[in-house]
Amino acid sequence: VIVYKMHNIVIIVATGVCHTDLYHLFEGMHKDGFPSVLGHEGAGIVESVGPGVTEFQPGDKVIPLFISQCRECRFCKNPKTNQASGRHAMMASADSRFTCKGKKVLQFMGTSTFSQYTVMNQIAIAKIDPTAPLDKVCLLGCGICTGFGAAVNTAKVEPGSTCAVFGLGAVGLAAVMGCKSAGAKRIFAVDINPDKFEKAKVFGATDFVNPKDHDKPISQVLAEMTNGGVDYSLECVGNVTVMRSALESCVKGWGVSVLVGWTDLYDVATRPIQLIAGRTWKGSLFGGFKSKDGVPQMVKAYLDKKVKLDEFITHNMTLGQVNDAIELMKHGKWAMKTFFFLLLTVSDGFK
Amino acid sequence: VIVYKMHNIVIIVATGVCHTDLYHLFEGMHKDGFPSVLGHEGAGIVESVGPGVTEFQPGDKVIPLFISQCRECRFCKNPKTNQASGRHAMMASADSRFTCKGKKVLQFMGTSTFSQYTVMNQIAIAKIDPTAPLDKVCLLGCGICTGFGAAVNTAKVEPGSTCAVFGLGAVGLAAVMGCKSAGAKRIFAVDINPDKFEKAKVFGATDFVNPKDHDKPISQVLAEMTNGGVDYSLECVGNVTVMRSALESCVKGWGVSVLVGWTDLYDVATRPIQLIAGRTWKGSLFGGFKSKDGVPQMVKAYLDKKVKLDEFITHNMTLGQVNDAIELMKHGKWAMKTFFFLLLTVSDGFK
Repeated sequence: VIVYKMHNIVIIVATGVCHTDLYHLFEGMHKDGFPSVLGHEGAGIVESVGPGVTEFQPGDKVIPLFISQCRECRFCKNPKTNQASGRHAMMASADSRFTCKGKKVLQFMGTSTFSQYTVMNQIAIAKIDPTAPLDKVCLLGCGICTGFGAAVNTAKVEPGSTCAVFGLGAVGLAAVMGCKSAGAKRIFAVDINPDKFEKAKVFGATDFVNPKDHDKPISQVLAEMTNGGVDYSLECVGNVTVMRSALESCVKGWGVSVLVGWTDLYDVATRPIQLIAGRTWKGSLFGGFKSKDGVPQMVKAYLDKKVKLDEFITHNMTLGQVNDAIELMKHGKWAMKTFFFLLLTVSDGFK
Repeated sequence: VIVYKMHNIVIIVATGVCHTDLYHLFEGMHKDGFPSVLGHEGAGIVESVGPGVTEFQPGDKVIPLFISQCRECRFCKNPKTNQASGRHAMMASADSRFTCKGKKVLQFMGTSTFSQYTVMNQIAIAKIDPTAPLDKVCLLGCGICTGFGAAVNTAKVEPGSTCAVFGLGAVGLAAVMGCKSAGAKRIFAVDINPDKFEKAKVFGATDFVNPKDHDKPISQVLAEMTNGGVDYSLECVGNVTVMRSALESCVKGWGVSVLVGWTDLYDVATRPIQLIAGRTWKGSLFGGFKSKDGVPQMVKAYLDKKVKLDEFITHNMTLGQVNDAIELMKHGKWAMKTFFFLLLTVSDGFK
């Protein structure tokens, strides 16, 4: 094993699959991002540390972070954001330690958790409670923090409020859980797949709306059900039409809508009056959590039974089945997270 | 004079002209809104009150409000907004007391200040300091509160921050004044008419940018001048392209952009990543001031020399010259407010 200055080598024990992997893999957004090792929602154990590493030692349980927290740049120092400065955003793909048949393979989102080993800078790893089950808390590496935090940190859902969550994948379900945790009175779960409503109920949804059941725009349906619109809406799909609907489903005056789903193919649009009438449009990345601070807190919240994780898991598979897992996700045959226990054998092609 | 229950009859002593009048008049947005008496930025004196009026008596100096404040509806009771419920938004046009040659004439924005007399509900009038000069404080009936409040109340500009104001009409100049009042360190005044920069300096602008001087998008120009973008931007034009530029001129992580200018012809758009990267998009109507509470406070701030008004005034004209004033505004030959001293003669056509 080669030791890199200031980097930790992390054994990945478990990882989830996330729609962002699919997006990258199948939808061709990042044509310059191949070949790469996908996966960004993992948990593991530090195997060894490079010179200069001060915060970790072999044996530490950790979660790799696709947004780092250096604690030094103006973004890290500003309590309003969890964004990192460009330089610290993640371990640059060009720094990848992966090779295949002698050629460099890029490190997706600075993490690459579909692998037994990955090399991370210490500003991009969170040390977590040593009692945490890695096959559960890996989900806090992306989707669950993303949805939960979007409600709690970005929308700042208030007790007694009315919320709508659009899209009931893992992120949306986590957003429902965030709204519930923040004390929302009514939580509308919105999805065109009614099979997801039962699970949404587990996380706290109180009302269920399938846009296909209505001739009217969903914003109008919700306005009629809530005397003018919801206080908070969260778009957890990554579709610009749904983003618009989510905004326009908010009540005028103080409604807040948060983009949580990801897309960068198209513009998102609305009429200016929607904002001038007092709505606020925001976005959330990794749920607004400052990553090194937030992830260990969320792990603790799970251990304290304040957030659910087990309920998100639908399939347990091995790394060798990664393509099957991606297919499940691709065809929408999942409501929640699939994750892998990685077998600690060296996969073909990675040396 | 006919007395209406719960309504005050107000003598208009002075009024400004506002681009919203022009918009209504020339740009044909509200084809069902004619014929109407325009003008919505006035100040006057209560002439008489109808039965049930409890808050006013003849002789009170007042400013008519195009957003009312009933203090009873859920909007008025919510400290987050100055929006009124539909029922209380303004005196309905259909309630207009204006007629011309026997036919009903509508009351524009519930106020109609291009008139010697107008009839208002008491929830839509602010009583102001009796020493206030009406020919100055009339400007607080729309534009100055709109721009100033957008910075102070809606954007919530913080001390030491960096701001950009797009469009240097009266609203934009008032926004500059609001940023200055809130303690902004740098205030970028952006306009394609450099003649306006000198006046912007009077209100506190520190940097001046003419997009026509640059080949690059203005958002990129501002990003380069500010190490990544401004903390706050305010769009005071009413143009969806400028609205987008204003948003994209904000720094990622915590940048806040506010729509202040008005248009409802087109969609406003951006890429989702602009919001997901941590920017917030808001809008402001009447500067977020709860109208009956806020206007008297702004009048006091003027009397205490904490906000400027005199510097906004470019022309003093009579009501008979209203069409000339509109022409001045229509052709952009104004940087600031034109207002009228109304001659208290009955104009042709209004009985």
